[in-house]
Amino acid sequence: MMNLRGFASDNNAGVHPEIMKAIEACNQNHVVGYGADPYTKRTAEKIIEVFGKNTYPFFVFNGTAANVLSLRSMMQSYESVICSDTAHIHEDECGAPEFITGSKVIPVHTPDGKLTIEAIKPHLKGIDFEHHSQPRVVSITQATELGTIYTPDEISRIAHYVHANNMLLHMDGARIANAAASLGLSLREITRDAGVDVLSFGGTKNGAMYGELVLFFHECNDAVKYIRKQSMQLASKMRYIAVQFEALLTNDLWKRNAEHANKMAQLLAEKVSQIPEIEIVYPVQANGVFAAIPSALIKPLQDEFFFYIWDEPRSEVRWMTSWDTTEDDIERFVKLIDQKMRDYLFS
Amino acid sequence: MMNLRGFASDNNAGVHPEIMKAIEACNQNHVVGYGADPYTKRTAEKIIEVFGKNTYPFFVFNGTAANVLSLRSMMQSYESVICSDTAHIHEDECGAPEFITGSKVIPVHTPDGKLTIEAIKPHLKGIDFEHHSQPRVVSITQATELGTIYTPDEISRIAHYVHANNMLLHMDGARIANAAASLGLSLREITRDAGVDVLSFGGTKNGAMYGELVLFFHECNDAVKYIRKQSMQLASKMRYIAVQFEALLTNDLWKRNAEHANKMAQLLAEKVSQIPEIEIVYPVQANGVFAAIPSALIKPLQDEFFFYIWDEPRSEVRWMTSWDTTEDDIERFVKLIDQKMRDYLFS
Amino acid sequence: MMNLRGFASDNNAGVHPEIMKAIEACNQNHVVGYGADPYTKRTAEKIIEVFGKNTYPFFVFNGTAANVLSLRSMMQSYESVICSDTAHIHEDECGAPEFITGSKVIPVHTPDGKLTIEAIKPHLKGIDFEHHSQPRVVSITQATELGTIYTPDEISRIAHYVHANNMLLHMDGARIANAAASLGLSLREITRDAGVDVLSFGGTKNGAMYGELVLFFHECNDAVKYIRKQSMQLASKMRYIAVQFEALLTNDLWKRNAEHANKMAQLLAEKVSQIPEIEIVYPVQANGVFAAIPSALIKPLQDEFFFYIWDEPRSEVRWMTSWDTTEDDIERFVKLIDQKMRDYLFS
Amino acid sequence: MMNLRGFASDNNAGVHPEIMKAIEACNQNHVVGYGADPYTKRTAEKIIEVFGKNTYPFFVFNGTAANVLSLRSMMQSYESVICSDTAHIHEDECGAPEFITGSKVIPVHTPDGKLTIEAIKPHLKGIDFEHHSQPRVVSITQATELGTIYTPDEISRIAHYVHANNMLLHMDGARIANAAASLGLSLREITRDAGVDVLSFGGTKNGAMYGELVLFFHECNDAVKYIRKQSMQLASKMRYIAVQFEALLTNDLWKRNAEHANKMAQLLAEKVSQIPEIEIVYPVQANGVFAAIPSALIKPLQDEFFFYIWDEPRSEVRWMTSWDTTEDDIERFVKLIDQKMRDYLFS
Repeated sequence: MMNLRGFASDNNAGVHPEIMKAIEACNQNHVVGYGADPYTKRTAEKIIEVFGKNTYPFFVFNGTAANVLSLRSMMQSYESVICSDTAHIHEDECGAPEFITGSKVIPVHTPDGKLTIEAIKPHLKGIDFEHHSQPRVVSITQATELGTIYTPDEISRIAHYVHANNMLLHMDGARIANAAASLGLSLREITRDAGVDVLSFGGTKNGAMYGELVLFFHECNDAVKYIRKQSMQLASKMRYIAVQFEALLTNDLWKRNAEHANKMAQLLAEKVSQIPEIEIVYPVQANGVFAAIPSALIKPLQDEFFFYIWDEPRSEVRWMTSWDTTEDDIERFVKLIDQKMRDYLFS
Repeated sequence: MMNLRGFASDNNAGVHPEIMKAIEACNQNHVVGYGADPYTKRTAEKIIEVFGKNTYPFFVFNGTAANVLSLRSMMQSYESVICSDTAHIHEDECGAPEFITGSKVIPVHTPDGKLTIEAIKPHLKGIDFEHHSQPRVVSITQATELGTIYTPDEISRIAHYVHANNMLLHMDGARIANAAASLGLSLREITRDAGVDVLSFGGTKNGAMYGELVLFFHECNDAVKYIRKQSMQLASKMRYIAVQFEALLTNDLWKRNAEHANKMAQLLAEKVSQIPEIEIVYPVQANGVFAAIPSALIKPLQDEFFFYIWDEPRSEVRWMTSWDTTEDDIERFVKLIDQKMRDYLFS
Repeated sequence: MMNLRGFASDNNAGVHPEIMKAIEACNQNHVVGYGADPYTKRTAEKIIEVFGKNTYPFFVFNGTAANVLSLRSMMQSYESVICSDTAHIHEDECGAPEFITGSKVIPVHTPDGKLTIEAIKPHLKGIDFEHHSQPRVVSITQATELGTIYTPDEISRIAHYVHANNMLLHMDGARIANAAASLGLSLREITRDAGVDVLSFGGTKNGAMYGELVLFFHECNDAVKYIRKQSMQLASKMRYIAVQFEALLTNDLWKRNAEHANKMAQLLAEKVSQIPEIEIVYPVQANGVFAAIPSALIKPLQDEFFFYIWDEPRSEVRWMTSWDTTEDDIERFVKLIDQKMRDYLFS
Repeated sequence: MMNLRGFASDNNAGVHPEIMKAIEACNQNHVVGYGADPYTKRTAEKIIEVFGKNTYPFFVFNGTAANVLSLRSMMQSYESVICSDTAHIHEDECGAPEFITGSKVIPVHTPDGKLTIEAIKPHLKGIDFEHHSQPRVVSITQATELGTIYTPDEISRIAHYVHANNMLLHMDGARIANAAASLGLSLREITRDAGVDVLSFGGTKNGAMYGELVLFFHECNDAVKYIRKQSMQLASKMRYIAVQFEALLTNDLWKRNAEHANKMAQLLAEKVSQIPEIEIVYPVQANGVFAAIPSALIKPLQDEFFFYIWDEPRSEVRWMTSWDTTEDDIERFVKLIDQKMRDYLFS
């Protein structure tokens, strides 16, 4: 029987009660579709409150779409985006960025998932040369796919470099809440204030049901509304996405959810790191724990708590925590690991 | 102040309570993402119960996506789709079909929104000639954008013609429930049994929150799962879409909702047709009423009940009813029309 | 055995000796590739001499590419181009415009191949409405696919209308030389001076070997050079295309070739119109003759002179003349028609 | 004044006299367009003579198009191609492969431009996982962009590995002639016989005017003819491309041209390697010489003989020889280098 709890992904969790309540609360009467409704308007105001004036919000359906809408709005088909070789836009979107934008995605090797100026630099070449796709966007992920986090200063330095080279900075913030909570900073401080031009602001992994948000800071191309529609991302009953983000931004729900998930990851990391045969392979800064474990353990553990293998040759696994992970989940999982490890070692 | 009721679109209505309840009911514990969960499995079984074995369901986010996923799975970029010139895929999707499939959309003039063999025939040309985009799909809309309905026999004849010409038949069923309810037939009888190969099965306009369904009958290309993901239509928390369709297919909710909406359209049509200055311009067979009204009336009416102008030069407007339209809504609206008409005639 | 002469297309002819000589003349030594050579520079100067300052020339390989590069430079994927339903971009390019630009091509029925303001007008709708692909370009063909010609005044009126609606005017000039020669006007008078924004200037059908030319009048988007390269249209040995256009623009070779082809079409039309069973179906204004002939004649005639059926149900055929069509070709062909007609009538 | 000789690229050379003669010889009378002519037929027979039965040839206009047509025929948009990070398809086609195929191009670091199984292996991951673009094609370049060459055995081993993993092998043979000549093998031995599935067979860099050739070995998708047309690569006056390839394959012209170019590269490498301050950085196996030279020398040398900087930070330059490079060219160039080096060293 499928276990009712797991560590596969933060999107295996359900919807936070406050978000569910917001959805129910807006479920009355008629409102004009496609975002011209009072709920979406109210949420836009809340967003501006959080991120500042001249923030232009566009709701889409999922994270891939948020990244692709961002990129397509920032660059032409003959331009390219530079990202980490572990970035979601490179590894996990089945080539959607290339397919929809027509552009090149240039992966750069990053040991910890974090881009640096030094890693970006060699790819800024062939400028003005029509044979070469023109570097236009740098995309960083916060928190990274490896559970690590950029400091505001690191982002800021990349932003300066990017802007100095006539490029734009995109942030894939599918787990932006986890990053902000981990750093103890506001959402604005690690995005707009650090020099990010366009942000994919994730809700689904932080307790929402569906819907993600693209935020353009400073200015927004007139084309975005058409690009969203033509990219099949214009929701007719928009109010149900909008109120989820309103709820997340109300009474710091985003932060409470993220802090909890982060705390659970710390707890898990702490406990498993006491098992000598397990090695935590990346710093646990957000809500992901990456561990090298004996390969013989993987299947028995997955039989009871589902999770993904991250790197098969190196026998690394990924354990994600979420807003609804409980201490009991952790305890039961660690107990299981402990028991399977003993079986393995002493069999 | 914005009125709380209107006739702009069936997507201005909210979510039906039974659907909302289904969403709440599945909101517990963890399930694997992207459709590998027990709720999606259960819904797939329900779908097969309704449409028969060898029905392959793919959930997507919205109606444009359902149409585009269907088309992209049915044809290559050098092939074309023939549709009515009022079809959603031609008029209302901002060119998404061309953009995502790379294919030609060939609009055919249809006075009542319904394609016929005679109208399709002249476009089956240039076969095997590499200079000409190859006709591959015919797409019909049921109910049409003009509120008319194909009989099963009409669909069946088109299907035979299409298949005899080595082509496939797609149905845009954003309002398939309204059509089936109107005809007093099952969903299967007017789709699969009538020869439809791929169906966009609409939920949002029939009381769902979001999510649409693509059904492949008979067989399904291995490519579809990748195409869906690459088209940014793979929902992570898939259960919340699945249970909405499970609810629609349980105790004929789809039918109850559609019958009600259709009945309200009949009521509205009946009442306004008693006003001599108003002409109903298409047969009212589903949940839409198209009327030619004095142009001076449009603005005053829209100030109190929002709706769309359909054809400005001909002063035609569109009034849509939905699962939650009440007799009181109709009465208040007709009363308003009546009053504004008097003001107009006797001022 | 395949006949050595025919009326299938003006691209069945060979290369004019003056053009061949120009190719040979530039075949010496090394020059930098991709257009940065003295021959291309010299041709650019000649083009500016003919079309005026601020004319920006881009060579591509063929006519489809010239049209697609023009369109892609003029519009975004969520914008649309309006053209005649007989336009090459709609009927004869296997969907290349949709595939490469991602845009909608909107065909408008035109009895004689010529767009009019009245025919364009109904399609300028849904402006600023994100659900609707935005009309951005009108494309006219000069001479049309039916061998008819726009007067400068007709073009000018369309241009004014187009510009007044914030759109751009493209001209597919695959047979621009035939049109100019027929009107007794300069190339500039019927293009730039009449309000055309971007011109596909054809060489291949007027005696060149390969290569077509896109001319941007007034201004040119910085993106064009990248779009050309990314569209696989940047020739490495550019000089060999450039000198062909230099030759065409030298001593009015374009005009001499076109006048001859037009004259041969007149001669053919004149002669066949004396046969009572043959009806010339469009005015013969350029180098094409469209005739309705008894369908039983088509095959026997094609056995000796290849040509295309234009409209099978109506038994219409297309006969194209070219720069190298001789009076003897015409005489032999007419004699054959005459003889086959007698066989047909008296058998 | 621009120098009349240079080492910038083998496409800076002109057209070989035997090819020019072939072009002139076919320039008579009318032939049907788009490849249905006797010259194209004759060339196809010659191609089959050289490469064996079941070789399917498709002419296109240039090298980028040959690569892109190959790739688009071999894979779907949700599949990916693995290549060297110096491959033309990755570095020098302005993102055309991504733009036209919609697919991912996955660059793999190769110190000498040559892929190996070891380098490919880590990228064969995420198989059957819809989140990951599916590896489908490996593309190797022969001769590589660094002037190195794969042995038939190296190709064969890659081909086996690729086929064992349900993938296909593409070869970018823009300089296939130089590779075959260098190895002393036939064109077939290092392509089809070594396991290549689809070959971009280059002509332009080996003495042709324009036009490249895609060869499908074993089998050929029905779609290719439409893909070529829709990709704007169907030449109307096809005979002029065909005869160039016929000439190249007649009396081993391809080989004579390539051997000469290779020999000139050897001569150049030999001479410059005697200058101690110059380091040849890659094995000179085809017609390219890559050298690290004092950066102060670059500009003065370029003022007299044009060539490209290959790697600015490392002060590496690229010198290409061609079918028409003369010993005198080499001597004059080496003399210049020698002289500028002295100026530099002793100034």
